[in-house]
Amino acid sequence: MSVQWNELIARDASALRASEIRDLLKVAERPDVISFAGGVPDPDLFPVDAFRDIYGGMMACDAQARRSLQYSVSEGLPALRQWIVDDLADQGAMRDIDNILITNGAQQGLDILARLLLEEGRNLIVEKPSYLGAMQAFSTRLPNYVGVDAEDEGPVLSQLEDAFAKGARVAYVAPDFQNPTGRSWSIARRKAVLELARRYGAVLLEDAAYSKLSYNGAESLPSLLSLDAEGADPAMGNVIQLGTFSKTLAPALRIGWVCAPRPVIDKLVLMMQAGNLHVSTVNQEAALHAARKLFPGHLEKLRVSYRAKRDVMLQTLTDMMPDGVSWTRPEGGMFVWLTLPAHIDARQLLEEALEDVKVAFVPGQAFFTDGSGANTARLSFSTEKVDRIKDGITRLADLIRRKDNQ
Amino acid sequence: MSVQWNELIARDASALRASEIRDLLKVAERPDVISFAGGVPDPDLFPVDAFRDIYGGMMACDAQARRSLQYSVSEGLPALRQWIVDDLADQGAMRDIDNILITNGAQQGLDILARLLLEEGRNLIVEKPSYLGAMQAFSTRLPNYVGVDAEDEGPVLSQLEDAFAKGARVAYVAPDFQNPTGRSWSIARRKAVLELARRYGAVLLEDAAYSKLSYNGAESLPSLLSLDAEGADPAMGNVIQLGTFSKTLAPALRIGWVCAPRPVIDKLVLMMQAGNLHVSTVNQEAALHAARKLFPGHLEKLRVSYRAKRDVMLQTLTDMMPDGVSWTRPEGGMFVWLTLPAHIDARQLLEEALEDVKVAFVPGQAFFTDGSGANTARLSFSTEKVDRIKDGITRLADLIRRKDNQ
Repeated sequence: MSVQWNELIARDASALRASEIRDLLKVAERPDVISFAGGVPDPDLFPVDAFRDIYGGMMACDAQARRSLQYSVSEGLPALRQWIVDDLADQGAMRDIDNILITNGAQQGLDILARLLLEEGRNLIVEKPSYLGAMQAFSTRLPNYVGVDAEDEGPVLSQLEDAFAKGARVAYVAPDFQNPTGRSWSIARRKAVLELARRYGAVLLEDAAYSKLSYNGAESLPSLLSLDAEGADPAMGNVIQLGTFSKTLAPALRIGWVCAPRPVIDKLVLMMQAGNLHVSTVNQEAALHAARKLFPGHLEKLRVSYRAKRDVMLQTLTDMMPDGVSWTRPEGGMFVWLTLPAHIDARQLLEEALEDVKVAFVPGQAFFTDGSGANTARLSFSTEKVDRIKDGITRLADLIRRKDNQ
Repeated sequence: MSVQWNELIARDASALRASEIRDLLKVAERPDVISFAGGVPDPDLFPVDAFRDIYGGMMACDAQARRSLQYSVSEGLPALRQWIVDDLADQGAMRDIDNILITNGAQQGLDILARLLLEEGRNLIVEKPSYLGAMQAFSTRLPNYVGVDAEDEGPVLSQLEDAFAKGARVAYVAPDFQNPTGRSWSIARRKAVLELARRYGAVLLEDAAYSKLSYNGAESLPSLLSLDAEGADPAMGNVIQLGTFSKTLAPALRIGWVCAPRPVIDKLVLMMQAGNLHVSTVNQEAALHAARKLFPGHLEKLRVSYRAKRDVMLQTLTDMMPDGVSWTRPEGGMFVWLTLPAHIDARQLLEEALEDVKVAFVPGQAFFTDGSGANTARLSFSTEKVDRIKDGITRLADLIRRKDNQ
């Protein structure tokens, strides 16, 4: 008899659903569509010449190449973990090499943390809205989402405290240039959130994917990790930070990391061992060489380019959008968050935008766990050229104005 | 207050345990120890020159390099999946590109299949003994292991049928040069096992990690996948095969694959998306270029080298081991399986072997789910030179003889 797959597939795995929006957005890959949909870095900014030298150099030394091609430890390369420790120290977070685990991108960090800290029905605090990819990783554990509203300064403290008081002990947050809103928390809100987490013995999963992409000249604000001074004891602290080279070097390396207290890292290492043994040694070394060779100059190059794109998007929004449309003014990252008049459904708008004006974006509802946000949208300014950003926002504004007048 | 990690760690994650043997075997990395412990390929056989050209070439074309460094699809590169389809067709297994998913090594294939097909308490059939790494992946799902004894020809059919009759629907098997025993199933046993699986609508997870490393000149026996002719319909079939380039090119690429019916692949793709987005594009391309450029010549080079090592190990065992010790005679792969007199505990023997004669191996008990196999051991012949293999087996035989005479 045939295999009855429906009976065999595990209950939690059945929860995985294909994204309808992903299918819709396949259209956005056509060159005639101006796409604000992707959340991907600008490939024109990849340091290709450096990678040519780096991969070539790695394979030029025979003994070194044979080590790079062999199985390796599940924790990740010590030299790369040390580079991350040094970089964190520069940001004011004193941590130990044993607090660092290398992962296949930050996404795998989310996945293994979900497997470690979530269980069916356990409360998980998320910002409203929150990063879609994180929720995909979390949802395989069937948690109970507790949404906390976001203000420009950060999450609403009374709601966060309420969630902690009701027993939630894990919160997923992105204080720097959040995907999807581009918002950053104020320093006061960072301190207050950490203080609350301390009071309740709660864990803050800090997604720092965009932290290095800050455009307003000033130093980035201190991360939750760096504010969590107790974490200087390798076994202590309330903050687990997720980092990645995907936005600063290249996504295809799939090199991210988790910085966490030792009791967490010890378990995550076993999970990596059981899950995929270790991250590609070749790519860990390539990332390490590239970071040593290119930072901070390359980061400045990224900031100059993305800043110009952000400025054009914000200026065109100001110039062209009709009344009743509002948006965030990100100081870094890749995203602007649009709030449309309540009567406009962004999913419907996307279909019209693709059809009528050849513009793509991501409807915002997917970033909420409670089905709200129907009139919101995420606009990415990372990949299109400035002319096309101006053109695309103008076309989108025209479409919205026409709908408004209907 | 501090985070109470013990209360926060999920119940299934608590099941993860560090391997005591792994710690013990850290000693085996010292150069004065002759190690039969590792299950890793011989780094002297890595095609380093080819990889230098391949990585260099990939980064030399600017447009190509930028694509290789960008995010990619969760299924894996179409060209690599097509290469795998063609290679399977050469082995008599007619499959479709949509039956292939690229994974971070075969280990990740095991992990995501465990997440798809296992649940707490669900019966999972494994051979006795079975690959330790697979069981680490499976154990995170808290299955109920049903062990089936292995003969030289393959698993004992009556036990397998009994397990199916009692409701088990998933079996993990390695018909080619199994890790840890080196055994291969006979063609008759392959057909009989597949026939049983068909009768009960059961799934066979076929680990084909070592399939290409066959040393006896003859063609490899047909895989379960190729015998499963119903699988020519992309949605059908009872066999899911796991493959990898770790043993034939280089482990650090972390490129493996799953070949499965469409309903399975569709779910696994979502799992990859949620779990780590996709496998490193750079490494997928490097593996594809290497396979196109080097196979089958490179495979023949591996076979010649490993065959010589196997021959020396088997001959020295025959020459030196005392009566009462028996072992398998693998026709491929990397392992010989030793059965000691019942009164010898292999774990105890390992401690003495490391201390007294500077020889390492893996005690066999870890490969059994039921705690049996205390008098068994896995010997790998893959990494040591032939002289040291001869020397190491001689020393080990001396130690066993001394224990026997105690």
